[in-house]
Amino acid sequence: MDIIIIYLPHTNCLFYLMVDHFGFNIDRTFKQRYLIADNYWKEDGGSILFYTGNEGDIIWFCNNTGFMWDIAEEMKAMLVFAEHRYYGESLPFGADSFSDSRHLNFLTTEQALADFAKLIRYLKRTIPGARNQPVIALGGSYGGMLAAWFRMKYPHLVVGALASSAPIWQFNDLVPCDIFMKIVTTDFSQSGPNCSESIRRSWDAINRLAKKGPGLRWLSEALHLCTPLTKSQDVQRLKDWISETWVNVAMVDYPYESNFLQPLPAWPVKVVCQYFKYSNVPDTVMVQNIFQALNVYYNYSGQAKCLNVSETATSSLGVLGWSYQACTEMVMPTCSDGVDDMFEPHSWNMKEYSDDCFKQWGVRPRPSWIPTMYGGKNISSHTNIIFSNGELDPWSGGGVTKDITDTLLAIVIPNGAHHLDLRASNALDPVSVQLTRSLEVKYMKQWISDFYVRLRKMN
Amino acid sequence: MDIIIIYLPHTNCLFYLMVDHFGFNIDRTFKQRYLIADNYWKEDGGSILFYTGNEGDIIWFCNNTGFMWDIAEEMKAMLVFAEHRYYGESLPFGADSFSDSRHLNFLTTEQALADFAKLIRYLKRTIPGARNQPVIALGGSYGGMLAAWFRMKYPHLVVGALASSAPIWQFNDLVPCDIFMKIVTTDFSQSGPNCSESIRRSWDAINRLAKKGPGLRWLSEALHLCTPLTKSQDVQRLKDWISETWVNVAMVDYPYESNFLQPLPAWPVKVVCQYFKYSNVPDTVMVQNIFQALNVYYNYSGQAKCLNVSETATSSLGVLGWSYQACTEMVMPTCSDGVDDMFEPHSWNMKEYSDDCFKQWGVRPRPSWIPTMYGGKNISSHTNIIFSNGELDPWSGGGVTKDITDTLLAIVIPNGAHHLDLRASNALDPVSVQLTRSLEVKYMKQWISDFYVRLRKMN
Repeated sequence: MDIIIIYLPHTNCLFYLMVDHFGFNIDRTFKQRYLIADNYWKEDGGSILFYTGNEGDIIWFCNNTGFMWDIAEEMKAMLVFAEHRYYGESLPFGADSFSDSRHLNFLTTEQALADFAKLIRYLKRTIPGARNQPVIALGGSYGGMLAAWFRMKYPHLVVGALASSAPIWQFNDLVPCDIFMKIVTTDFSQSGPNCSESIRRSWDAINRLAKKGPGLRWLSEALHLCTPLTKSQDVQRLKDWISETWVNVAMVDYPYESNFLQPLPAWPVKVVCQYFKYSNVPDTVMVQNIFQALNVYYNYSGQAKCLNVSETATSSLGVLGWSYQACTEMVMPTCSDGVDDMFEPHSWNMKEYSDDCFKQWGVRPRPSWIPTMYGGKNISSHTNIIFSNGELDPWSGGGVTKDITDTLLAIVIPNGAHHLDLRASNALDPVSVQLTRSLEVKYMKQWISDFYVRLRKMN
Repeated sequence: MDIIIIYLPHTNCLFYLMVDHFGFNIDRTFKQRYLIADNYWKEDGGSILFYTGNEGDIIWFCNNTGFMWDIAEEMKAMLVFAEHRYYGESLPFGADSFSDSRHLNFLTTEQALADFAKLIRYLKRTIPGARNQPVIALGGSYGGMLAAWFRMKYPHLVVGALASSAPIWQFNDLVPCDIFMKIVTTDFSQSGPNCSESIRRSWDAINRLAKKGPGLRWLSEALHLCTPLTKSQDVQRLKDWISETWVNVAMVDYPYESNFLQPLPAWPVKVVCQYFKYSNVPDTVMVQNIFQALNVYYNYSGQAKCLNVSETATSSLGVLGWSYQACTEMVMPTCSDGVDDMFEPHSWNMKEYSDDCFKQWGVRPRPSWIPTMYGGKNISSHTNIIFSNGELDPWSGGGVTKDITDTLLAIVIPNGAHHLDLRASNALDPVSVQLTRSLEVKYMKQWISDFYVRLRKMN
């Protein structure tokens, strides 16, 4: 059941980096991990495809970015996967890295981009034949934002960027905060009759049951929870966890069996929706349906003995680091109203969010910083970035889905979920993603050939 | 004698900024000073000219950037002069700002550019009519580098930059380290017969005299030093101070009486060279000539009672802050060989430089960081930057003196010294600088009209 992808051998490497690129008082270094594969690399006319690692173990991203492996030969490319600081094994202060806000102080996008810059310069300096080769940044999701921002801030180091499912506009008031949950809802309403309507009603079913005498125990048993609900706050946590599950299923609604956040069947939203065909059912039946639906996501293997409310995805993602980033720079407002979406109404409350962050990490978010730094919607002076977005992906709401200029291109993939285009080619891929990938290769080849034309002119 | 420039009234303002834009552990703010003048500003079709302050008091830069005042009406421009953190009155930790490397940790170009970015966003948000106006960054010298880098890193905030006398390539091995002193030498050799040759010989005259019994006392008296030389290291300091003086005179070799680094006559290098007509003179005569020449720079007012070896320029420059910056990011290698230039041979020794920095500030320079961050010579993907350089200016050696693309433009000003074009128009200005300024205005107007065309298209 588990999908095991075996890629060409790659080498695990380490590179010493400054913990603080932007200050000189702390003169400490740490080891960044990166993976490198040069089986198809050609010195003559080749290229370097550089994955700008995001919030997790780089090996996991490497194994879920089959696109780069698929095109390596055609692009005569060396593949490099750079791990993001504070994730995987690239911990600036080892086990202490997450101990407090002082140790976490160097976990920012700016530091991460500077890491990538130093690594690229190092690789060009030390790998014979690499110096005069074009580098392209690629990334998905947060890694896609980093790829785009890297091209914006370090255009001298990369000739272009493929930013897949990169919600660079999910900040401040650049897009409405309810756009994310609306897209999740659309996915569900298109994947089965009454599906989103049933889920919209399911919250009250849970609420009503929770209020009854033995309701918490009954809910815990009906949902096979590993840790039973004991107090009323647990019910909110339960609903948050279920909401996040539906969001995740929407994100990974891939057309084939896959194992990204969890092992899942093909088109998992459709499978989930099979349990939500009827919105007018007794509350107990509704909860039993929820349990069946949750099992699609948490128990596709059939091995799970109970469901754990504190987990929603693979442990390869660095939840601690991301929680800190969400509390500092990466403030991405979301909200729901229960009318245009299938979730309980939940407004965006910056004050509350900030207070929670302060409680958890001792820091306060700066929600307008990312648009100040990276330009918000005003990015038209940059060049050579492809923004690809799957139409099914809730993150596409904060993504660039229309061409900005003739070198800042948007590709929307109907039937595509979260960075589907970066995944390995699959027989079940819709034509739309196949076309997307060929278009991406076409543009990347253009950047590469433009680079070599300029290089020849200079020599 | 003192040139007093009285500009239109401007308002001194303060803006609260984060001490650390790139970390969240220190949640402290400080007050940045900026000057604003809107007498000629028009809401309709106007612009904002934003001076990216450099290493000194912003009022002093404001008074030495008459060009902006001269063109304000024609450009319907609001003028903003932003003080650089750690200079003038913009001290993040008040009197403690320079106490140690911990307090100095936030003195970097990246933090300064982020300050400018926040200020521009703030002005656009709070000044009615400013929101939809194009901003142009202007700066000279280090401020010119900041202007260019600001356009490179924040093109969403400024439509272009005028970077006057900005030696963005005086880093690492981007240009030969001896280019700077060679240009100084050329200035002197072109400003009078035997001038550079005399200076080249003057060092040994000093050395020979210093070795004699009463030599130090004699030198101290002959040069009217405020603090007599007492040990042999003092002689090296003396020569360094004299060298720096000739460098400064070359920098401010303006065609009219001026008061930038010091009050000076027109064409001060020519005036200095009047005392260096004869290279074959006895050592004592040579030293008396040096004294006369030094007086041109240090005593044009005729008021100085003695010469102070520890000062070379106006106190409006922030020497402490700059010394720290030179020991961290702003490592600009210079060297001399005494053959192709008129100075004593002095090689560039990075190890020694780094050790000195560590002794003085407890930090070590990172000489390759600026090219990593700002692209070194590989900046062709940027647009709308004018690099102007005076041919007499030693800093032009590290500047951009040839067009890179049709929107990255270089203007070389024959007979121009350090950012002459940014100074107020003067009846004695050579035609070259008059032409330069009209060209600069032409390009800036183009950026502004392009901006308004885009704006109209969007609405």
